[in-house]
Amino acid sequence: MLQKPRGTRDFLPDEMAQRRAAEARMREAAGRWGYGEVCTPTFEHVELFTMRSGENIRQEMYTFEDKGGRQMTLRPEVTASVARMFVNEGRSIPKPVRWYYVADCFRYERPQKGRYRQFWQFGVELIGADSAAADAEVIMVADDLLRSVGLDYDLKVGFLAPMKHLLAGVDPALQRQVMGHLDKRDLEGLAACLQSCGQADLESSLSGLVSCADPEEAFEICGEIPEADRIRGIFSILEGEEIDYAVNFGIARGLDYYTGMVFEGFAHNLGAENQVVGGGNYRLTHLFGGEDTASCGFAIGFDRVMVSLGAVEAPSLPVVAVLAQTEMQVHAFAVARELRAAGVRAEVNLLERGIGAQLSHAAKGADYACIVGKREAEAGTVTLKDLHAGEQREITVASAIAEVTGSGAR
Amino acid sequence: MLQKPRGTRDFLPDEMAQRRAAEARMREAAGRWGYGEVCTPTFEHVELFTMRSGENIRQEMYTFEDKGGRQMTLRPEVTASVARMFVNEGRSIPKPVRWYYVADCFRYERPQKGRYRQFWQFGVELIGADSAAADAEVIMVADDLLRSVGLDYDLKVGFLAPMKHLLAGVDPALQRQVMGHLDKRDLEGLAACLQSCGQADLESSLSGLVSCADPEEAFEICGEIPEADRIRGIFSILEGEEIDYAVNFGIARGLDYYTGMVFEGFAHNLGAENQVVGGGNYRLTHLFGGEDTASCGFAIGFDRVMVSLGAVEAPSLPVVAVLAQTEMQVHAFAVARELRAAGVRAEVNLLERGIGAQLSHAAKGADYACIVGKREAEAGTVTLKDLHAGEQREITVASAIAEVTGSGAR
Repeated sequence: MLQKPRGTRDFLPDEMAQRRAAEARMREAAGRWGYGEVCTPTFEHVELFTMRSGENIRQEMYTFEDKGGRQMTLRPEVTASVARMFVNEGRSIPKPVRWYYVADCFRYERPQKGRYRQFWQFGVELIGADSAAADAEVIMVADDLLRSVGLDYDLKVGFLAPMKHLLAGVDPALQRQVMGHLDKRDLEGLAACLQSCGQADLESSLSGLVSCADPEEAFEICGEIPEADRIRGIFSILEGEEIDYAVNFGIARGLDYYTGMVFEGFAHNLGAENQVVGGGNYRLTHLFGGEDTASCGFAIGFDRVMVSLGAVEAPSLPVVAVLAQTEMQVHAFAVARELRAAGVRAEVNLLERGIGAQLSHAAKGADYACIVGKREAEAGTVTLKDLHAGEQREITVASAIAEVTGSGAR
Repeated sequence: MLQKPRGTRDFLPDEMAQRRAAEARMREAAGRWGYGEVCTPTFEHVELFTMRSGENIRQEMYTFEDKGGRQMTLRPEVTASVARMFVNEGRSIPKPVRWYYVADCFRYERPQKGRYRQFWQFGVELIGADSAAADAEVIMVADDLLRSVGLDYDLKVGFLAPMKHLLAGVDPALQRQVMGHLDKRDLEGLAACLQSCGQADLESSLSGLVSCADPEEAFEICGEIPEADRIRGIFSILEGEEIDYAVNFGIARGLDYYTGMVFEGFAHNLGAENQVVGGGNYRLTHLFGGEDTASCGFAIGFDRVMVSLGAVEAPSLPVVAVLAQTEMQVHAFAVARELRAAGVRAEVNLLERGIGAQLSHAAKGADYACIVGKREAEAGTVTLKDLHAGEQREITVASAIAEVTGSGAR
């Protein structure tokens, strides 16, 4: 039996309806902030992603050669594609550009819980605004999107400058190690690492930075750095809008990539793989042949959000099974058409079987059965059976519609 | 400058909004017929598609080897994936199964007008119903989907049995040639072909079949074939539902693939590449290790539908640009939040520039400017400027919301 590829998923209608319902709420939220949807190709020239993320990403990508001998790859993320699109097409659009995407991405990783080889991201990019307000807006959009679907999560907001300032004179390889320890909040590892490199004097200031509860505490440690006002501006907007977040100057994600503000969100109920959003300031457009443009964005791991949410309520229409013997089928389709026109989901029986068998089948998924027999057709009626209550009566199609639509979705 | 791959597209927000609006209408229509959305992986084992379509399809597919040495390919169509999914997961679901998908597909063809290397299909599969009503329903769903977006198109419905009956004793290679001529309505080529093979006696009956206006004419030519009642049943339902279609027993598409009813739709305004839908009966599940199951479905070429439609009206919210000096930004975000809560699209100015420059920028895309100055903040008001009419006045936020939402979308 042929199977789906390892690490990929098939989605049946119930799950898809829940995913689309959550997606719709996020779309609405993004739209209210002024973000418009964009769509880029599923595969791109491989250089697009190695220029952003370095050559190591090749190992995680699905790459193939096209007939022109060009290396193409399935996108492992969408930000690089959006930046390329901005360089190619966005020059004439008034800045800042507010874009979002809902896109599938591909990573060739060992499949494990919460990690798939094809996965979906809901992402936002704000391109061409370089201000505290821009940084704060992007954080608040992420928060609004996640709250719009009812996600329970922790938001952590940081800024790379204080840490970079403390590490300014340190060897880049050691910086990377230090960042790794900080990112994991591994203060013991940090101490040992600094000790072995003769930089033990940095330990207290770095570990102090990690535990700062507000930016002023950080400035006491790193001094009044040039970015201090930008940082104050971001947090004063988040405070003003009563965003529920924690300051964390120990966030050290994507050191080579992010340039200033960074933020992360973690769902409460997901175990080890619990990060549901990550984002920050970055600069990519100049790499792809455009002007250097300040950018800020995030990507939400849509699949993890769905796992965290569990069952999502999806809008549903009342379902009416329209039942008839084969010789009455033309009439059954006409009744079904009237039901559909009134916003009902009407499913005509398509198998050649008796009304009893049709009723048993209808009971598995429909809210009502609408039986169209010869007598009913001649009288201009239908027999409507409420499959939950078990009651049935012969009424006009108009009355049947009133009963079904009045009842709402089950 | 890095470019998108050849034959692919980037979609900006205006175009995406139109695509999503058309997609939403098709989704609603499919839902009313009882079809639920499914989603399968973007890449599959290559055998899935060669088993369905033959080895020749390899040349049109993007194929890559994964690290396990398995040949994977970007799906060139979705029906095979859905049939595989049905075999893997659909056994316990009551039949018939009514599924739809909205999916991107990939074909490695020479890019040309109306043909892209990544393209979108809106498709429907009805699995497990083998009846005239099933065939008719699938045709009517396709018609309803295309009418729901306002497409102007011609629907042609045929059935392979009459033609297959006439060609029953003919060499398969010749059958294929004949089908090719019939499919193109190339009656001269047909005549020459039959002549050269000593089958000239078939010419009049085959060309007669192509020009039949109703099934009874076809049965006069091919006789009362076993499928006659099925065929009559399909057309009597289509007649009863007043579907606008033409009978065409010359449709010879996918001879190796379709098993009975076949149908096609052609947009009026698309030139040579004008087919927007194709479908029919098929049997695939047994190829993939499942039970042999009657299936019927179609795929709509979504990109061509969008080209044919031209501009599509997309729902839009009124856009309010919230303008403030940097020191008033916290207040601006609070006003914007109130506007969003009332369903308005509110975009806070994020660049450090004067109110005049902010107003000029707002005039490029917003319906209203909402200015939040120190005086307004103290008075609990905003200055609302209608950017179309040019009028402005200082009012409460509540009055501003009433004015903006009362005006509706522009």
